[in-house]
Amino acid sequence: MACAGLYRFNTRLLHTKFPKRTSSSSSARINHTISASTSSDDAFFTWDDVFRSAKPHDAPRDSPNSNLHAFFDRIKACNRGSEMRREFIPFVVEERIVGYVHNRFAEVLRDFKDVFVLEEDDDDRRVSLCGSLASPEERTDAVGEVIERLGEGVIPGIRNELYPVTSSFGAPVFFSLERAAAPYFGIKAYGIHMNGYVDRDGEKFLWIGKRSNKKPTFPGMLDHLVAGGLPHDVTCKENVLKECEEEAGIPRSLAKSAVPVGAVSYIDIDEYKYKRDVLFCYDLKIPDGFVPSNQDGEVDSFKLIPVTDVANIIRRTKLFKPNCSLVIIDFLFRHGFITPEESGYLQLLQSLRSGDCS
Amino acid sequence: MACAGLYRFNTRLLHTKFPKRTSSSSSARINHTISASTSSDDAFFTWDDVFRSAKPHDAPRDSPNSNLHAFFDRIKACNRGSEMRREFIPFVVEERIVGYVHNRFAEVLRDFKDVFVLEEDDDDRRVSLCGSLASPEERTDAVGEVIERLGEGVIPGIRNELYPVTSSFGAPVFFSLERAAAPYFGIKAYGIHMNGYVDRDGEKFLWIGKRSNKKPTFPGMLDHLVAGGLPHDVTCKENVLKECEEEAGIPRSLAKSAVPVGAVSYIDIDEYKYKRDVLFCYDLKIPDGFVPSNQDGEVDSFKLIPVTDVANIIRRTKLFKPNCSLVIIDFLFRHGFITPEESGYLQLLQSLRSGDCS
Repeated sequence: MACAGLYRFNTRLLHTKFPKRTSSSSSARINHTISASTSSDDAFFTWDDVFRSAKPHDAPRDSPNSNLHAFFDRIKACNRGSEMRREFIPFVVEERIVGYVHNRFAEVLRDFKDVFVLEEDDDDRRVSLCGSLASPEERTDAVGEVIERLGEGVIPGIRNELYPVTSSFGAPVFFSLERAAAPYFGIKAYGIHMNGYVDRDGEKFLWIGKRSNKKPTFPGMLDHLVAGGLPHDVTCKENVLKECEEEAGIPRSLAKSAVPVGAVSYIDIDEYKYKRDVLFCYDLKIPDGFVPSNQDGEVDSFKLIPVTDVANIIRRTKLFKPNCSLVIIDFLFRHGFITPEESGYLQLLQSLRSGDCS
Repeated sequence: MACAGLYRFNTRLLHTKFPKRTSSSSSARINHTISASTSSDDAFFTWDDVFRSAKPHDAPRDSPNSNLHAFFDRIKACNRGSEMRREFIPFVVEERIVGYVHNRFAEVLRDFKDVFVLEEDDDDRRVSLCGSLASPEERTDAVGEVIERLGEGVIPGIRNELYPVTSSFGAPVFFSLERAAAPYFGIKAYGIHMNGYVDRDGEKFLWIGKRSNKKPTFPGMLDHLVAGGLPHDVTCKENVLKECEEEAGIPRSLAKSAVPVGAVSYIDIDEYKYKRDVLFCYDLKIPDGFVPSNQDGEVDSFKLIPVTDVANIIRRTKLFKPNCSLVIIDFLFRHGFITPEESGYLQLLQSLRSGDCS
């Protein structure tokens, strides 16, 4: 592949507007209402902090008519920056919109003339791929090389994991893109999130994970028992089975009982990143007595917590990785922990699919 | 209340365009793929017809990639006439849109000058209530009198049951309107639908009702175990308890275990009727051995049917009252009978709330 413009890009364009933001984990450190443990530099909060936030049940809370108020806040936290949508232009492949690119990032891509084309027609701007890149493989290689050249300074946290680039779930895949670059190109990204629950004589509990403090994203925060992005060429079901094994040591014989129960979606714009995520939700009823055990070092520990307490943690803190809140609120709806008598029931239900759920 | 214009309305305006349609039940008679029983004039189809449609499981059906195709058809049947929306104008109370009225029906209402005002401002037309009708009670009485005057020829099937007129669920109620008139004013209408299911060693069954052949709407068609419109001043939960008792003889001690699990919505335009319905969905796990028994004469009989067979009946026939299909498809999603591996998963999920779900 000829890359005439490959060395001419100017990333200075990317650093002229937004002040450097603190990492995602900082929000967990400064925003939650619980005092963080100081026993270790890495420990932003402990399980004791978590449990204190869940009890007592009669702690000051919203009036019965605005019980759902805090849940709306969690959903907003996954749907930031809608006022910035006009700063993004479509990323088009084979005349289908597959993503959205920030105006200024588009200027950076303009330098890679053998890979990207910046089309400008009156007020209508869009980024597309060079016509010479006809096959998915050629596109994957060419765009991958650009991302490598841009480097960690522009697209941090390279994972060497490819996401399919498509107009909607199940539609033809035009090429594959490094996972860390997905939000910079605003492509649709899909994932699976599994609620692992225990039913003990009618009282339901959720297995909650605490992410390793060494994770590059959302270190130390609360998470689902099992969750993961959906890579290219893996079905949701296969991904659930794989992640069950890796993240929680759940054997295939149990994991295959995981039930697909729907999906949530959100659009989150943060500086140059335009996330358009759809999460397929699963429920797995875990036998009482089974204790999950992380295999890949990405989870610090798991705790079994009554669902009503989990709801309180979500209401009162920001200790959960933000998108987990959506999936857990969906669980609360489907299992009757939120009722039509609560003000805002239908609006909250709708807001669980604020993004393009396709 | 003075009703100067009450005797001057001209319903001829309503009969100039649409040919007289056959009743809703006719579609059940002519469209389903099962031969209707001819043992009685009233029996459009029998349970035997239903069971034949559910089996065998390997009957000709769509390819695995278009498994959901027929479900989309059922959803379309609840969302007809979107191309006719421009024939309707807003019905406004206290500057809030509470409904939509057909242009021609608005001309009829124009004659009731002490009740309705037809405002015309360039291309912007809307119907509102006379400013002199300030209280909900005055509005309810005045509009009720108009509906009575219009009579069965214009608004058939008067039920003497009042629906709240509101801009969204839980918002202030501006007045109350006869249930049969609701679609003519395009007001939002709310209902509850309950899936009664049995879990027999992991295999799930649904209790399905067959409506009495004497019901004025959808006679003889398949229905949920329990369903009903939500009248003014009754909560969803109270309504579920009441309908459980009346429709299926389910005692309060069991009915109170019904779990609210979300909602579906649709917009259905049929001639002058503009239905904007939201159905709150409930699941009730019925103990194996309990047999429902109708108390109010509105249900002919109940049968316990494997969920996979119910799915086939919905796929292959139009024997269900149309809006039941939406609630049952929602059940199929939440209980894992539809999987992300099936083409159209996300679109079908989204389409369950095609109406304004607020």
